[in-house]
Amino acid sequence: MRLMESLATTETLAGIFSDESVLRAMLDFEIALARVQARLKIIPRAAARAIENAAQPDSFNPAVLAHAAQRAGTPAIPLVKALRESVQKEDPSAAGFVHWGATSQDVCDTALVLLLARAQAALESDLERLQLALRRVATKHRRTVMLGRTLLQPAPPVTFGLKAAGWCAAVRRGHARLGAAMNQALVLQLGGASGTLAALEKRGAEAGAALAKELKLGYPDAPWHSHRDRLAGVLCACGILAGTLGKMARDITLLMQPEIGEVSEAQEPGRGGSSSMPQKQNPAGCVVTTAAVAQVPALVASFLGGMVQEQERAAGAWQAEWSIVSRVVQATGLAVTAMAEIMENLLVDVARMRANIEATRGMVFAERIMVALSPKIGRVHAERILAEAIALGRAQNKNLEDVLAQMDEVNDHLDARTLRDMESPEQYLGAAQEFQDRLLSQGGKQAARGRKRRKD
Amino acid sequence: MRLMESLATTETLAGIFSDESVLRAMLDFEIALARVQARLKIIPRAAARAIENAAQPDSFNPAVLAHAAQRAGTPAIPLVKALRESVQKEDPSAAGFVHWGATSQDVCDTALVLLLARAQAALESDLERLQLALRRVATKHRRTVMLGRTLLQPAPPVTFGLKAAGWCAAVRRGHARLGAAMNQALVLQLGGASGTLAALEKRGAEAGAALAKELKLGYPDAPWHSHRDRLAGVLCACGILAGTLGKMARDITLLMQPEIGEVSEAQEPGRGGSSSMPQKQNPAGCVVTTAAVAQVPALVASFLGGMVQEQERAAGAWQAEWSIVSRVVQATGLAVTAMAEIMENLLVDVARMRANIEATRGMVFAERIMVALSPKIGRVHAERILAEAIALGRAQNKNLEDVLAQMDEVNDHLDARTLRDMESPEQYLGAAQEFQDRLLSQGGKQAARGRKRRKD
Amino acid sequence: MRLMESLATTETLAGIFSDESVLRAMLDFEIALARVQARLKIIPRAAARAIENAAQPDSFNPAVLAHAAQRAGTPAIPLVKALRESVQKEDPSAAGFVHWGATSQDVCDTALVLLLARAQAALESDLERLQLALRRVATKHRRTVMLGRTLLQPAPPVTFGLKAAGWCAAVRRGHARLGAAMNQALVLQLGGASGTLAALEKRGAEAGAALAKELKLGYPDAPWHSHRDRLAGVLCACGILAGTLGKMARDITLLMQPEIGEVSEAQEPGRGGSSSMPQKQNPAGCVVTTAAVAQVPALVASFLGGMVQEQERAAGAWQAEWSIVSRVVQATGLAVTAMAEIMENLLVDVARMRANIEATRGMVFAERIMVALSPKIGRVHAERILAEAIALGRAQNKNLEDVLAQMDEVNDHLDARTLRDMESPEQYLGAAQEFQDRLLSQGGKQAARGRKRRKD
Amino acid sequence: MRLMESLATTETLAGIFSDESVLRAMLDFEIALARVQARLKIIPRAAARAIENAAQPDSFNPAVLAHAAQRAGTPAIPLVKALRESVQKEDPSAAGFVHWGATSQDVCDTALVLLLARAQAALESDLERLQLALRRVATKHRRTVMLGRTLLQPAPPVTFGLKAAGWCAAVRRGHARLGAAMNQALVLQLGGASGTLAALEKRGAEAGAALAKELKLGYPDAPWHSHRDRLAGVLCACGILAGTLGKMARDITLLMQPEIGEVSEAQEPGRGGSSSMPQKQNPAGCVVTTAAVAQVPALVASFLGGMVQEQERAAGAWQAEWSIVSRVVQATGLAVTAMAEIMENLLVDVARMRANIEATRGMVFAERIMVALSPKIGRVHAERILAEAIALGRAQNKNLEDVLAQMDEVNDHLDARTLRDMESPEQYLGAAQEFQDRLLSQGGKQAARGRKRRKD
Repeated sequence: MRLMESLATTETLAGIFSDESVLRAMLDFEIALARVQARLKIIPRAAARAIENAAQPDSFNPAVLAHAAQRAGTPAIPLVKALRESVQKEDPSAAGFVHWGATSQDVCDTALVLLLARAQAALESDLERLQLALRRVATKHRRTVMLGRTLLQPAPPVTFGLKAAGWCAAVRRGHARLGAAMNQALVLQLGGASGTLAALEKRGAEAGAALAKELKLGYPDAPWHSHRDRLAGVLCACGILAGTLGKMARDITLLMQPEIGEVSEAQEPGRGGSSSMPQKQNPAGCVVTTAAVAQVPALVASFLGGMVQEQERAAGAWQAEWSIVSRVVQATGLAVTAMAEIMENLLVDVARMRANIEATRGMVFAERIMVALSPKIGRVHAERILAEAIALGRAQNKNLEDVLAQMDEVNDHLDARTLRDMESPEQYLGAAQEFQDRLLSQGGKQAARGRKRRKD
Repeated sequence: MRLMESLATTETLAGIFSDESVLRAMLDFEIALARVQARLKIIPRAAARAIENAAQPDSFNPAVLAHAAQRAGTPAIPLVKALRESVQKEDPSAAGFVHWGATSQDVCDTALVLLLARAQAALESDLERLQLALRRVATKHRRTVMLGRTLLQPAPPVTFGLKAAGWCAAVRRGHARLGAAMNQALVLQLGGASGTLAALEKRGAEAGAALAKELKLGYPDAPWHSHRDRLAGVLCACGILAGTLGKMARDITLLMQPEIGEVSEAQEPGRGGSSSMPQKQNPAGCVVTTAAVAQVPALVASFLGGMVQEQERAAGAWQAEWSIVSRVVQATGLAVTAMAEIMENLLVDVARMRANIEATRGMVFAERIMVALSPKIGRVHAERILAEAIALGRAQNKNLEDVLAQMDEVNDHLDARTLRDMESPEQYLGAAQEFQDRLLSQGGKQAARGRKRRKD
Repeated sequence: MRLMESLATTETLAGIFSDESVLRAMLDFEIALARVQARLKIIPRAAARAIENAAQPDSFNPAVLAHAAQRAGTPAIPLVKALRESVQKEDPSAAGFVHWGATSQDVCDTALVLLLARAQAALESDLERLQLALRRVATKHRRTVMLGRTLLQPAPPVTFGLKAAGWCAAVRRGHARLGAAMNQALVLQLGGASGTLAALEKRGAEAGAALAKELKLGYPDAPWHSHRDRLAGVLCACGILAGTLGKMARDITLLMQPEIGEVSEAQEPGRGGSSSMPQKQNPAGCVVTTAAVAQVPALVASFLGGMVQEQERAAGAWQAEWSIVSRVVQATGLAVTAMAEIMENLLVDVARMRANIEATRGMVFAERIMVALSPKIGRVHAERILAEAIALGRAQNKNLEDVLAQMDEVNDHLDARTLRDMESPEQYLGAAQEFQDRLLSQGGKQAARGRKRRKD
Repeated sequence: MRLMESLATTETLAGIFSDESVLRAMLDFEIALARVQARLKIIPRAAARAIENAAQPDSFNPAVLAHAAQRAGTPAIPLVKALRESVQKEDPSAAGFVHWGATSQDVCDTALVLLLARAQAALESDLERLQLALRRVATKHRRTVMLGRTLLQPAPPVTFGLKAAGWCAAVRRGHARLGAAMNQALVLQLGGASGTLAALEKRGAEAGAALAKELKLGYPDAPWHSHRDRLAGVLCACGILAGTLGKMARDITLLMQPEIGEVSEAQEPGRGGSSSMPQKQNPAGCVVTTAAVAQVPALVASFLGGMVQEQERAAGAWQAEWSIVSRVVQATGLAVTAMAEIMENLLVDVARMRANIEATRGMVFAERIMVALSPKIGRVHAERILAEAIALGRAQNKNLEDVLAQMDEVNDHLDARTLRDMESPEQYLGAAQEFQDRLLSQGGKQAARGRKRRKD
């Protein structure tokens, strides 16, 4: 993880997209290709062995390859060349069988897919931690009332449980979308020069199917060298998930404002401090999440724009993908990890939540009183009376119920006791708990399935 | 359809997002809400009737509403106000029941969803036309050979059938993705002020379910006012589909260059001409497609970025959505329509396709000869010989086979006849037809199901 | 202004990009072209008169033209055709001289530039209102102290004057950037079929210069049909300005949270209310600004991506520009207008600003005390003591000064009086006023120049 | 340069944004801050010396810092901490004066600006090479005729000199824009905790000015911690320049299609080959340019969107900048470098350019003949005749002149000789050379100034 990218990846993901890991994935493709072709008697068994022996990441200098990749327009050309030279030294008769029937895009695309499979595993594990934490928070705070806030202004109360359940369900949907998109995208690319596998004569599809199996990837109906929609699906799923995580980070950042003070990231050494202000308790995890999320949408757009790829291989749009894909996945992964840690340790100030409702002096229940008054005195009249009462309450720092209790037109229909009850948050939660239960129930089933599957 | 937007929508879609249609959708929500609430005895039956009577699009001035919407920050506030005033005139006791228990976002979001459902129908029909046309083209040209082109340079041959089948399968996947995303997104939004439906007391979820049914929408687990991932899914699906259509338009634009001349959009009056050049046969449909597609990715990014919505209702990001969503859908729809028309009338010059292969003088078969020579004389040696022969052929305008036939090192292993055969495009198609069949088979099943479903 | 776009434009700008106005601009180009060519004796004087007579917007049906534009791939072809037919009826010999030597892109690009010039005037006037209002706010609140807030957590105090001056200077820089970019971009496009004006033989540049003068546009070194950097400059300037306005809207939205309550948009009928919550005082103007701003960056990216235009005229990227450019300018303009209105009427609660500082119980002055203690007892020691004191203060709801005054290690160096003084906001403003003066001085000069220039 | 980023940076720029270089820039800030404060007697001279001694990049472990940066939400906090500890070991009394009066953003922003200054120098040098090469190409091919191509269809001829001059002027404008934006942006950030430099009491602006001078940066009117428009200007300038370079790469890629074959990148070992196709002469440099350019617009949009930064320091948007800025600059720089190399070695096939004009069999001169015929027989009539002649010529593979010469209606007005002359490209270049001269003249003056300035 480099300094310039310290808010754009995680150590795990930086490792997955590191030179060593990229080399490993490319060489895994070449090894598996040779192995499968030997098994199918397309190339000699000895050649496959020689290739496998030579294809060790340590034998290659990534800096030299990167330099050559920039000249060649793809890392595949210098890597294949270096591999061939290496095989040549050991077994000259085998060198010609390196990369047999394949083309640059085959090794680059398949290597990317192999890296994505590893990245998915990393993301999955944090996504599960995150959902578990959210489910726990939601359950714990099923009855914790807090202000609803719309356009950042107070609105009738919600529960913190409902809010957390909403986050949880959105993460669950995002997780499911990512899983589905990955399932579609984790397929072999093997097309040869033009996508017909002509160099393998009639055995192209057979070799492809065997190679996919060897690499534990799906085998698509045809090579996808110039149709990038499956990868686009993965990036879009990352983009949507990142959007959800960004929303959560924003919510928490706002709730952490000391003037609101309802929740807080756990503070610990090296986290949340400032280089100049000793008193600071910064939303460091949310900041990291927000910074990571901010980079994703535009990169998704880059990828979508780059889907316009010419004929059987694009002149530029394809070559831009590695950088874009790896950045989207890394930034999304960072947001997942940061948010999982936040949610596992979130501090909730239940008293402050209630206090903030009370601080509105009943004003957020104006809708409720309006609804109660309207049928009795007409909407227009009710609106006028409430507007007056609210203005008066604000001017005199009085509770809305107290102002209303003084107004005859109200008194005739709602007594002081009723008015006071109308300003009880617990009495004005509507379907909050029903919605929370619905939001979590589906996830529960999925989580159970998820756990089961893993045991297999 | 306005001049400024004539390359950004279709007449059908412009109609769906027109003032009249938007008003209609918003009023449909208010009517259905009242009707359902009357049925559930939440509001009086007479009030619902009065609301239904008043809620006629013709009674409202969209320009006035748009002006007021800009001041209010949402079109819902002025519309509800105007509807209430209108009901008030007819039945004062009913006016208070307009929009009962609902909030601005409920009517805006649900109206948008209703418009999306209509737009989907429009897109679906063109998507089916397009796939039918592509299937026909692919089948007809199953054996039509043409140059593969990678990085816009000649590569071993493909078939035009395979290319069209690749387009077709990508459109099919895009269609399926859009359908799935729409299925998820076409759900009611009804949450009231804070998303708890508190004003409906314990009957919120019941009313919601009934309203969803009334409007023929799905009923989600909870209101989705500040979780926009389902809509994001629709936009991403549009973005991916647009990318595929853009690729097709680029392919055809390139093949239509007279220096290549392999396919052509049908020319007809008002299409493909120039305001200054009488000889012009422009790829007008592809230009329209490309222009439409170019607008989509960034708008998708805007939406993804806008998913960071604060608490129970965002202060800005939500309000930006109408414009973004309607533009994405319209631009994508234009691309689908334009491409369907292109493919239904595409002119294919089979002879020119073959001539362009021959014009490479066998050079695109160099890979094949390399593959044949390598096992006999070693890869390094074969590479050197081919490089020499290619240079010589280029310098002397000779066919690769003729140059090679003069070289002893080749002669010893491949005779002139074999070399000539190696440069037959039909003999070097590998798995092209197998891949084509696989690409189309799945679509065939789907198309069949599609047709069946429609009959029901 | 349509409902779907009511948060994406202003009435003025919607008018500038309306069908009528677009037609007017295109016809202005054709009229001026004919007039200038007649003057230069390139076409007959009578032809120019006939063209001028026929080129009345009312004579054309924009809906029909838009429909035809979608088929032709550009509005120019149907418009020129319709104009020619119209002239033909009046003076057949003149019809051939319509659009003489020009091509579609000439009329489309120049019309767009003419519309931009009108839009610029609209934006300028609101930009000046906005800067005037900001300057007034800044001057009035030069000594008004308020919390600094970093990462949305309290930081040492700033003045509201400094904050407003920072906004003002950023708007001024944005204004200057937009002006400079417009100056570069408001140039004629006249290149003919391929950009050489070949149909005008040796008189192309002469005709171009005259036409530019006639249309009050600059005349560039050469036609810019496929180099779009000048327009890109305008869009980028809009993008940067929008970013600044978005920052201002976000700041105000946050300060308007009732828990903070330091500033407020003026509330008035139809603005800031809610369709369900009578107590609501929403940041409606900020919401509109934020919604408008949210649409701009991605559209700028679309334009930048679309600069990759092929050869002498692009097949798609150019055709996408009208929609993109008009949306960027309209959204930016809406943000300017909304923000000008907000700033002209902003309510500032000076007492609340001070109260919010006090509510931190001196914690935001921890840096100051640290700076004072460090040289005396060493940084490490000072840090430890402050950390303790802050924790204690928080736990016991005590002021930092009071806690510190009890600690011997502090007492030895800073007495209670000194500590109390250290928590006076006015005493800890550093260079705030100096910075404010510097920020405003430059604007003052510019504003003066601006006023002068206008008098000329 | 890593494999994943080998098409997203250059070795020079990767070096500038490497860990070592980033550390160097951050430490340079801390050293200069201490030195200047010592000079102004704000801190002891000995402290400054101790800080300078300790601030050696080798003493810090970037991987450890990056890890801590991710926890802290900024690299500044761990770096300052590590530096303080390092100073503490050497001179405990000095440790407290590390980073005196500054905050995290001061060191991060100023370090970024220092890196940008270095990057600018790298870009400048390649931009000058590129313009020199373009000027040479343009001058050499001032009379080289080639097809104009609009919508990728043949249009009347242009000169290759004009095309190259157009590229050159656009690069020059881009260069100027970047220079101006850099001039604005290369300014110190020093604001302390809230941007008032309160910890420096009344000496903040004085210290700031001195520090700016020490670091050879401009000193702005005030700290710009939450107004990011100057940086946005740099990114936009990169975005516009990248667009121009992308257009050039697309043009060359298209002209390199063998079916067109008018220009070619120089081929050399390791460049332009394929891993499977021996005959390939790929546009490798254009591919690299296109891939680099493709990444820029969206990142610019990310930055613009991120300008919405809260109050005195943003909670996320600011922290996302390093990654975005460094990527934009690196990708743009790669495009400049790649394009400079292409243009310095571009192969031009003048004969093929002429042959491609001739291959249109005079059709591209149809406009010219129309212009000549119209005044004689009327536009409508002329249009009809030309349409007929073009259709006939296409059907019979005849030259347009030959078909027309057979038509009585033409014969009466234009004889065979005149018609033949009308199809001479050299006779139909209009203002091509005048435009070329205008395009290059300004650059010449600038280039001369540029050279002079450098000598000083």
